[in-house]
Amino acid sequence: MDLFTTAAGLLAYAETARRAGQRIGFVPTMGALHDGHLQLVRAAANDCDVVIASIFVNPTQFNNPEDFRLYPRLPETDADLLRSAGCTALFLPSVEEMYPQPAVLKFNFGALESVMEGAHRPGHFNGVATVVSKLFHLVRPHRAYFGQKDWQQVAVVKQLVADLSFDLEIVAYPTIREADGLAMSSRNRRLTPEERAVAPQLYQALAQAAEQVRQGMPPAQVQAGALATLAREPRFTPEYFEVADAQTLQPLTDYAPGRAVVLCLAVHLGAVRLIDNVIVSLG
Amino acid sequence: MDLFTTAAGLLAYAETARRAGQRIGFVPTMGALHDGHLQLVRAAANDCDVVIASIFVNPTQFNNPEDFRLYPRLPETDADLLRSAGCTALFLPSVEEMYPQPAVLKFNFGALESVMEGAHRPGHFNGVATVVSKLFHLVRPHRAYFGQKDWQQVAVVKQLVADLSFDLEIVAYPTIREADGLAMSSRNRRLTPEERAVAPQLYQALAQAAEQVRQGMPPAQVQAGALATLAREPRFTPEYFEVADAQTLQPLTDYAPGRAVVLCLAVHLGAVRLIDNVIVSLG
Repeated sequence: MDLFTTAAGLLAYAETARRAGQRIGFVPTMGALHDGHLQLVRAAANDCDVVIASIFVNPTQFNNPEDFRLYPRLPETDADLLRSAGCTALFLPSVEEMYPQPAVLKFNFGALESVMEGAHRPGHFNGVATVVSKLFHLVRPHRAYFGQKDWQQVAVVKQLVADLSFDLEIVAYPTIREADGLAMSSRNRRLTPEERAVAPQLYQALAQAAEQVRQGMPPAQVQAGALATLAREPRFTPEYFEVADAQTLQPLTDYAPGRAVVLCLAVHLGAVRLIDNVIVSLG
Repeated sequence: MDLFTTAAGLLAYAETARRAGQRIGFVPTMGALHDGHLQLVRAAANDCDVVIASIFVNPTQFNNPEDFRLYPRLPETDADLLRSAGCTALFLPSVEEMYPQPAVLKFNFGALESVMEGAHRPGHFNGVATVVSKLFHLVRPHRAYFGQKDWQQVAVVKQLVADLSFDLEIVAYPTIREADGLAMSSRNRRLTPEERAVAPQLYQALAQAAEQVRQGMPPAQVQAGALATLAREPRFTPEYFEVADAQTLQPLTDYAPGRAVVLCLAVHLGAVRLIDNVIVSLG
């Protein structure tokens, strides 16, 4: 596996692959890798000739400086995992390499980011869209792989690709969970044992709510019930629980036949903010 | 010269050139070509192996629907001119081809677009940045050529390229003028003979103001004098006349040694809105 820390090095690698007619798969990550990331790398290795992964804890998508500071960083372990999963090149840039000067332009995705993560993390999706655009320009992938745990992020990145005519395909893979249902996340490493023990209740609340949606319970009632369930665990501080249209991400007031529905939540557990979601139906 | 009307056709052409190791020069235009455009094509033909020009009257950068409707469209004449100037491929897409669905994302360039064209044409630079991003993704040029008559546009496009790490170089060429000083513009075709006769006074006002700046006259006085000069011609309705920093585009209140200075104006002349600028110094 090749290692690149400069944009110039990565550009040259991608250019060589492109000229040789090779298909490039790309897995952008913030590191502290788990099976959710590694399934993306394995899928890319299966689909493509060359697999480039990036590890970059992007400061511009963190609205909380403590979250940025404490985000786990394990580049050596990550490199071993990537190599084993079939990654052919790792891009590990510094902040200075990615942002030689601060970006001036700002992205706005309108209604798509006025809810959930966009509403609770001001500037988050501008940071995401900026760094993803930069990485796409350096890697020039044929396919880029994302995890559905960040459902809204996938929607924003797909919109970015469509609106700016990026010549690549976005592929999204389902959330990988621990045996007890907890969605895999790099931030799980920061949970205390006590917090880790109650964390699976987030998925349980989502699964229960999904069943209620399927039985036709009105969205507002599903939402209130889920928030009440979460409130029973004093370690949880829920930020939101939404019954939303899976494409537009807008909160649902009622169901229409054939409508795709997703349930999304964000909950603070101790010093860690966790998100998760469950797709109820894809319409 | 090859002609492409679909994104897929252009992508394939650019990919073939890239794989062959050819350098791609790109000249994006809205058509109704004049010598200002053709110098860009000739420069691209001199620098690059392949020259792609686009002609697309981009609706999303027009805030005035009448200006969009009346913008001159002369594709056959343009194609002949491009061929003679050394263009190897022309991209002539429909609105539907460029925007299969309306774009959701919006760009904002902060202070860079809070003045002059950005202030007077709401949404203009969002439209420019969106279409330029799309075209860059379809053409994948090594170099893209722009005219300095749209000084602020060049600044915005350079910011776009830097902030999103587009792997290409922006080259800007000086404004080409008619013998009487009028800046060449596709919109000049829409002037009546009487309007055309007074139009060179715009450049005369800029040249006179530039001389005053060089002599140290305070910016506010230069601006007031130029607006007074323009007001003497009743056919002119000035929109702005700015003494600005040539990099940041912000209005200057005084001069500092080594500061780059540009004078920019926008004036309505009959039904036509004209812009022009003069670089006083590049710092």
